[in-house]
Amino acid sequence: MTLESVDLKAAVVAVDVEIRFAETDLMGVVHHASYIVWFEIGRIAWMKAAGMPYTEIAGSGHHFAVTGIQAAYRASARFGDTVQIYTRLAKLRSRQIEFAYELRNLADNALLATGVSEHICVDLEGRMTKIPQTVVDRLFAGAALLGSRE
Amino acid sequence: MTLESVDLKAAVVAVDVEIRFAETDLMGVVHHASYIVWFEIGRIAWMKAAGMPYTEIAGSGHHFAVTGIQAAYRASARFGDTVQIYTRLAKLRSRQIEFAYELRNLADNALLATGVSEHICVDLEGRMTKIPQTVVDRLFAGAALLGSRE
Amino acid sequence: MTLESVDLKAAVVAVDVEIRFAETDLMGVVHHASYIVWFEIGRIAWMKAAGMPYTEIAGSGHHFAVTGIQAAYRASARFGDTVQIYTRLAKLRSRQIEFAYELRNLADNALLATGVSEHICVDLEGRMTKIPQTVVDRLFAGAALLGSRE
Amino acid sequence: MTLESVDLKAAVVAVDVEIRFAETDLMGVVHHASYIVWFEIGRIAWMKAAGMPYTEIAGSGHHFAVTGIQAAYRASARFGDTVQIYTRLAKLRSRQIEFAYELRNLADNALLATGVSEHICVDLEGRMTKIPQTVVDRLFAGAALLGSRE
Repeated sequence: MTLESVDLKAAVVAVDVEIRFAETDLMGVVHHASYIVWFEIGRIAWMKAAGMPYTEIAGSGHHFAVTGIQAAYRASARFGDTVQIYTRLAKLRSRQIEFAYELRNLADNALLATGVSEHICVDLEGRMTKIPQTVVDRLFAGAALLGSRE
Repeated sequence: MTLESVDLKAAVVAVDVEIRFAETDLMGVVHHASYIVWFEIGRIAWMKAAGMPYTEIAGSGHHFAVTGIQAAYRASARFGDTVQIYTRLAKLRSRQIEFAYELRNLADNALLATGVSEHICVDLEGRMTKIPQTVVDRLFAGAALLGSRE
Repeated sequence: MTLESVDLKAAVVAVDVEIRFAETDLMGVVHHASYIVWFEIGRIAWMKAAGMPYTEIAGSGHHFAVTGIQAAYRASARFGDTVQIYTRLAKLRSRQIEFAYELRNLADNALLATGVSEHICVDLEGRMTKIPQTVVDRLFAGAALLGSRE
Repeated sequence: MTLESVDLKAAVVAVDVEIRFAETDLMGVVHHASYIVWFEIGRIAWMKAAGMPYTEIAGSGHHFAVTGIQAAYRASARFGDTVQIYTRLAKLRSRQIEFAYELRNLADNALLATGVSEHICVDLEGRMTKIPQTVVDRLFAGAALLGSRE
């Protein structure tokens, strides 16, 4: 089994977030920066579901620093709604990892936003480093397992 | 003078933001979602400098809802640093407006991030609408003025 | 049955919140302002459990504007932890409402913080107004029900 | 000169904050948790003005962890407004420090909120510790200087 043989797209993890009053702005809907925090909740949930919790990665002295964010907003989210965050691992290299997101309104499944986050691995001093092989292996194995479960 | 004849790239507005302790995360640097809020500060400052304050746009019953965000993170920002946000108007159509951002560390001019935000005009009920012609005209005139000042 | 005869202290609603990475700061623990947002999550959950969802109050053109916050921080909360927010209605008058909070670490039940929020009722223009009688009645009935359930 | 002989109340530092769009909520005004972040901006500014920047305190391996917050909200703040944060050192002990805040609308001097934050000194592991004597001395000298300047 190699990374290439794993269908990363199939390994989707869903997590629900009840919209917080504090996440809205004076337009009456959720502020667009909140979605970026939801993406983060999504990838944290993905890693946990994959058996490689981010707390362990951080505990080993590594972080996945964000190098890029893309978000496309399709519909407004409102206080009282619940957002369903679907996350999948989009790319996994020795030094880079990328997640893709789809946000839907739990009530009617309406697409709220899509997005991507790109990351590099850094050590506690913020220096770029390789993702520890054990982390790569566990993320990879988790993706395979999650993908086969669907 | 037409919109096409105005060099939007030349109309850059700079605003400084002192980094808040609350904007950092456990990695010891600024959380990536804070940059998205800084982009917003940048475009608000741009519109104010251009003579078309966002408070007036909102007061007239319109909002520039965010439809897309792209951000590329180049270096970490830290508590104690001051970020210089350079904003320019990247696109202005009858229904769309787009801003581009460059964030630099005031101390050493190091590039922290670049980004783009795309917007459509909506009314108070969130329905897509044309940007009021007077708003387009004033933004356009402001861009011309700001560009010629450089 | 009168308001005075209801033991408001008995009507406690618990809600769990997984700590977000974005809620931490460079001290490595949760930023203290995040607890204020958790209080809000607590009272929203309380009202929902009591059968008087805040979305309905807002929908009727009223808001419970915050007039006072007190928070006592006892222990740090960390990314990876889950916070259990216990909320009770502390006071209910014709124009005022007050909630009390107790935050505990789900893992070991350690007390993280206690707090109180005081509110007045305002209309959509922000003018002080009486809490609609139907809202008072439903909150009161909800408190009685929740209290008897324990 | 002793701590008791310094009139801490006289040492007030003012800092202006332009309200961010992201700080508002669906009530159309600034969310109450944002004021807690403004308090933090106020005390950071106070320490800087007093000649004992918080970056240096943190750099020496200490933090002023928040143990208590009280806030009284008097008037709403709106996007487009500028808030003037007045901060003074309210108490300074070997292990505790306390700041008091007054927030005013720059445009009309209207009182927006008052508040207090209580802190203990902790080391990088979060253990309670004495405030380093040099920090106490410099804060104390700064307060004396700021107070005499008024």
